[in-house]
Amino acid sequence: MTRYSVSVHITPRRGVLDPQGQAVGGALRTLGFAGVRDVHVGRYVIVEADADSEQAARDDVSRMCERLLANPVIEDFEIATVSAK
Amino acid sequence: MTRYSVSVHITPRRGVLDPQGQAVGGALRTLGFAGVRDVHVGRYVIVEADADSEQAARDDVSRMCERLLANPVIEDFEIATVSAK
Repeated sequence: MTRYSVSVHITPRRGVLDPQGQAVGGALRTLGFAGVRDVHVGRYVIVEADADSEQAARDDVSRMCERLLANPVIEDFEIATVSAK
Repeated sequence: MTRYSVSVHITPRRGVLDPQGQAVGGALRTLGFAGVRDVHVGRYVIVEADADSEQAARDDVSRMCERLLANPVIEDFEIATVSAK
């Protein structure tokens, strides 16, 4: 067993309303950042877990996203990095 | 002016309590993911903004993090990617 660190991006699906992103975008423009066109706010989750291989760690975290970390109705997830510790 | 997409990772500082990460780790183990050792939950923010250059876009978003997006007392931020659209 090796310890792996797996990072995941969880983002609102395209086409789903993203009120948090809209609020942040409006706040940034109010602060003077006039160039801001669009903002999306998602989650960045880092899971440190023991697994037999890098592929097993990646598969485990995909299942964690499907079962708990992401809401598949309104969110997409993407494994960003997998590294042995 | 070019449109850039800048993504940022905002994470709890090492040493700062991360109750959300602890709760998610506990929930994953309860679901049967026995290999989970540690979980950290942060935010993943994508800013689409007009800027004169890639460096200017990066600098703008760093300032946005300092002023609004991240809480410097308890969070670190890191520009993950900058790409022209």
